This record gives sequence, C-alpha cells and structure tokens, in this order.
Amino acid sequence: MNGQEEWHNSPIGVFDSGVGGLTVAREIMRQLPNERIVYFGDTARVPYGNKSKETVTRYSGQIVRFLETQQVKAIVVACNTASAYALEDLEKESDIPMIGVVKPGARAALATTANKKIGVVGTEATISSGIYSRYIEEHDADVSVVGKACPLFVPLVEEGLWEDPVTDEIARRYLTELIDSGIDTLILGCTHYPMLRSTVGKIMGEGVTLVNPAYETARELKALLSERGLESEHRPGLGTELYRFFVSDAADKFQRFANSILPYGILSAKVIRIDEY
Amino acid sequence: MNGQEEWHNSPIGVFDSGVGGLTVAREIMRQLPNERIVYFGDTARVPYGNKSKETVTRYSGQIVRFLETQQVKAIVVACNTASAYALEDLEKESDIPMIGVVKPGARAALATTANKKIGVVGTEATISSGIYSRYIEEHDADVSVVGKACPLFVPLVEEGLWEDPVTDEIARRYLTELIDSGIDTLILGCTHYPMLRSTVGKIMGEGVTLVNPAYETARELKALLSERGLESEHRPGLGTELYRFFVSDAADKFQRFANSILPYGILSAKVIRIDEY
Repeated sequence: MNGQEEWHNSPIGVFDSGVGGLTVAREIMRQLPNERIVYFGDTARVPYGNKSKETVTRYSGQIVRFLETQQVKAIVVACNTASAYALEDLEKESDIPMIGVVKPGARAALATTANKKIGVVGTEATISSGIYSRYIEEHDADVSVVGKACPLFVPLVEEGLWEDPVTDEIARRYLTELIDSGIDTLILGCTHYPMLRSTVGKIMGEGVTLVNPAYETARELKALLSERGLESEHRPGLGTELYRFFVSDAADKFQRFANSILPYGILSAKVIRIDEY
Repeated sequence: MNGQEEWHNSPIGVFDSGVGGLTVAREIMRQLPNERIVYFGDTARVPYGNKSKETVTRYSGQIVRFLETQQVKAIVVACNTASAYALEDLEKESDIPMIGVVKPGARAALATTANKKIGVVGTEATISSGIYSRYIEEHDADVSVVGKACPLFVPLVEEGLWEDPVTDEIARRYLTELIDSGIDTLILGCTHYPMLRSTVGKIMGEGVTLVNPAYETARELKALLSERGLESEHRPGLGTELYRFFVSDAADKFQRFANSILPYGILSAKVIRIDEY
C-alpha cells in the first residue's frame, strides 16, 4: 500500500465460518455502497459453534493472515463465535482495525431494553463464552442477561426450513425459558439467525424487540471508517470488482446459498487452502 | 515393527469425522474383544457430509498418516462419507490393509433383499457420490437402488433427540419417497444413524429390514484379520491400554458422547493437531 490515498480504495475484509456472515456483508452493501468487500467463508471447517476456543482462535488467525494478503483496510469478524472466542487475540496480532458482531449487538440491546432484561440466542460456543452477558453487565450492572444455546437453528437454516412447523416446534422449546424470564429484548447472536427472524418474532410475541447485530455492525463499521479517514468516497468504477468471495471448500454450494440471500448475484467464489496461511 | 509376531498385537485404527464412528468401534469391541483399538475423531473439522470430495480426501489422508504413527495393523474407515470419497485414494497411498463401511453395508443389503429394491439414507456427500448404487448394481444388475440424503439426522442425533416427535416428523418427510418406492431393505448409510434405528424402523414399517453397516464391517474386519494372520490371539493383559482415543478438538464433549454409547467408559481422549500430518 502506498499511503493514505490508496487505502481509501482498499476493500473491507469480512469473514465467517461459512455462509452466515453474508447477512453482515449484505448490511455493509446496503449501508456502505461505496465500499469494496473481500468475503471469506471457512466452508471446509464449518461450523465453529461447537468447537473449542483454541481451535476457533487458530482458524480465525489463519483467515486474518489471508485477508492481509488481500490488502484489506479493515476486518469485520462476521461470526459471533469467532467474535466471542478470538477477536481479542486477533487484535493483538494485526494492525488492521477490526470489528466484531458482539459489541455492536450488545450496545444496540442496551439502547433498546426498557425493563433491563435482555435475552441472547446463539451457538453453544457463543453462549458458553458468556461474552454478551459480560459486556452488557459491565456497561450497566442493573441489566440482567439470559442466554440460550440453540444448536439446531444453524442446520435448520442451512436445510432451508426458515418457516416450517418443525422450526416452530424447535424454536418454541428453545425460547420458552426466555419468554418465562420476562425479557423485552432478544439479541439474535448468530449470523444465521436473521433468517429465522419471523419464526422467532412470532414465538417471542410483540412485547419483545429482536436485535440483529448485522445491522448495528455495519453502522459501527461506517463510524470507524469515518473516524480514521478510511471511507471510500466514490463508488468504484465499472472496471473494478466490487465484491470478491473466497471459500475453503465447495464453492458451488456457497454460491447457491449466497445468491438466495444477497441483493447482487455472485458470479464466482474462489476456493483457497486456508490451513496454509 | 519387528516381524509378524508383533503385528498380532498391534491395534486396529478406526477413524471418523467425529463421534459417529464410535458405533463401528462398539461393534468391533463386541465382535473382536481381543483387539486393541486406536480411534481418531476429527472433531475440529466435523462434519464431512457437506464437504467436497477433494477436502474429505485430503483430511482422510492426514488421518491415515497419523494412524501410521500409532503402528496400526489395519484401518477401518468408519465414516460413510470418507469411505465413499476417499477410500480408493487412501488404499493407493498406504500398505496397511483398509476396510470401509460402504462395501460391507452394500453386501449385507444384497444378501437381505428379496424384491431387489434397496434404499440408502446418508449425508449429502454419500448420496450424491452414488457409491452404494454403483457397487450394488455392479454386483446384481437386477437390483434397483434409491438414495435419499437426510442432512438433519446428524444434528438431531448430536442434539440427543433420538426419539422425539420432531425427529419423527423430519424422518417422515425424508423417508416418504423411500416407502413409496417399495424397497424391502434400507441401508443406514451414515454412522450416526443407528441411533435413530427405532424411529426409522417405526416409519418404514415391518416389511423393511434395516441394515447397519457397522455390524457387517466388524464381521468383515474379523475375516480380513484372519485371512492375513493378523488376529490377536489373546486379550491383552491388564497393563495394556486396550482402547485409545484421539480427537482434533474439544476432548470433553467427545468423551461425554462416547460414554453415552460405548460399553466401556472412556477415561480420556487426547487432542492432536491433525492438520500437521
């Protein structure tokens, strides 16, 4: 990179264990239409949500090293599990500004709750890390947080059962204790879960506001770029590839899923060997 | 290894993407009680069933190289996906005799069917590989094979919903077209599926025989060891560790699952870095 001038035009790196982070990429596309994106989905090792802190941190470090080769100007850890387990270590190892999905989601929930009772749903890893509770309670000791792991939500989303009686039944079982706890705000603490927004909303009822960290993350990314003078001022010209997608396995399947949720069609996703980084 | 004498006492290597292969290890423990076992579960990269042939083959090759360091006398590929995608390549790269779960399962189904209509359930990878159909139709061109991928079965098993109305409903959806096709034999073509045996049996009805490749694989392993003079003649003495377990991640969770399905308690599972092999 040759100075500040060119950094403007560098892409944002966005990564996830697989396709879930595309919900975050989608929000960045909407809110920051001038920005280029390099997306990486770790489809050879997906999912992260049932793996250990050590393994998730090692995998995330390899991805950051790959994104560095793509000259990204900022990195969005678009995966709650990686944000919970790895972000702190990643920030120590790289000079590139980074943003996870946990803190933006937590801050939005804090701004939303009236009765000071917040729920969080996520993978086993995210919930057992306790990161949402810790962050929220540090900022307001009067707020109580109830977490609930929902391990079947990701496979149900990947199987396409976004609205289905089976998904209703599973969601009802997972969510009952959250309803009983009297929360008024629920964080969708996994990037797959926005696809289940209507199912979860129906079961939680009108008194509960759902927080999608993807939206908040894109907002905070915008603020971060602006603070550091890193915003791209113009939409890149026609010759420039706006969005590039990399995966560690099975590019076809990734493309099909991506094309079902992104506003733009993906022409290709390139497979790389992530364990060599 | 110093000659034939000591090979007798070497362990059998058994591997899977995670815990599913323990159903095969369990059958080997039952049918070959004199044999030592070294089990490897690739919990850092589980599952394999939605990954590509290239990736599954590369991962399986690393595991074979690890098992070679454990001086195993034979290797059981206790994973249908790895048997379907990788076994042929693995056999080219190693001198250790190997056995997968696909051929034993297919042979048992051929011996069972009366109306020459066989069904197979498995992961997306196993079913789309077409390996069961190919093998069965090669052996008897009059037999027709109907395959059905059941991607939610593995997460349902791992979530402990072995007998549950939700599992019944999902199984009913997956299995309807197999019932309609008039099969009289159904291969449980994924090592997790024996845990759903009673659910699947109830839905398929009494006219359909379920084939569990784990049982057949242990039988064929016994024959293979006998043919090659590799059987252990005595049960190892008290000082010898009969069964050893290795995983690539999260040993605690593996142990809990293993202890729920094995006849012997597992005291420990050791974590190794499989991507360095």
